[in-house]
Amino acid sequence: MIHSEGFRSLGRQECLRLLAEVPVGRVVYTRQALPAVQPVGFVPDTDSSVVLCTSAASGLVRAVDGVVVAFEADAFDAGSRSGWSVVVTGRAAVVTDPAEHERLLRTGPRSWVPTHDGVFVRIEAEMVTGRELVGLPGPG
Amino acid sequence: MIHSEGFRSLGRQECLRLLAEVPVGRVVYTRQALPAVQPVGFVPDTDSSVVLCTSAASGLVRAVDGVVVAFEADAFDAGSRSGWSVVVTGRAAVVTDPAEHERLLRTGPRSWVPTHDGVFVRIEAEMVTGRELVGLPGPG
Repeated sequence: MIHSEGFRSLGRQECLRLLAEVPVGRVVYTRQALPAVQPVGFVPDTDSSVVLCTSAASGLVRAVDGVVVAFEADAFDAGSRSGWSVVVTGRAAVVTDPAEHERLLRTGPRSWVPTHDGVFVRIEAEMVTGRELVGLPGPG
Repeated sequence: MIHSEGFRSLGRQECLRLLAEVPVGRVVYTRQALPAVQPVGFVPDTDSSVVLCTSAASGLVRAVDGVVVAFEADAFDAGSRSGWSVVVTGRAAVVTDPAEHERLLRTGPRSWVPTHDGVFVRIEAEMVTGRELVGLPGPG
């Protein structure tokens, strides 16, 4: 579907496929009543949720555990002014099940910063939206 | 300053300089009581605010005009696991002054989607934070 705003909406499966193409996304949440955003390494998991790895002591974990957040990933090409963006919205929760934690240690995301207290945070893909920009002539 | 979380905090001037290096950032706001995020083309303006161009009829404009939002831009290199992220937090407002609108038509950002009702939205840089990841050995 082409919107009047000039982008194409992406279906859920197309969105989940695109998420697997990039290593970093951004968690969007509320911190001290202000909008907040932090880039994190992630992997899409088998049940179409998104899993992050971060420090247990980080403010991010305290702020998002148990609450609904948005998670965004994208890729753009400035030359052709084209690209895509996918947003997953759903509840975030620290992975506490030991077997699940063990599985993610083997197959899950690695933190991009050195951490000795890494925890996995799963974001359920309750709502998945995406848009594609098909490219525009550049300025001038 | 190197944090225990493994990144280096960036100063305000360093953050503003980095913002000029990328053409797309992400507006972080609240839509229908849920966290929301949308990529947009932008330019940093002379007074260190950030200026976006989008469609006047877009949901984004209605949601952010007059409210405090966050704006994030970043660049990461998966090979070296390094990169930076800058977040500007402040009030967003549609540019209504005709002279200012005219100036931005000449020097401001272009919308990445075709639009016949483009408006400029300014986000004041009331708070500017940034972090740099200095790189890690890859997995394995």
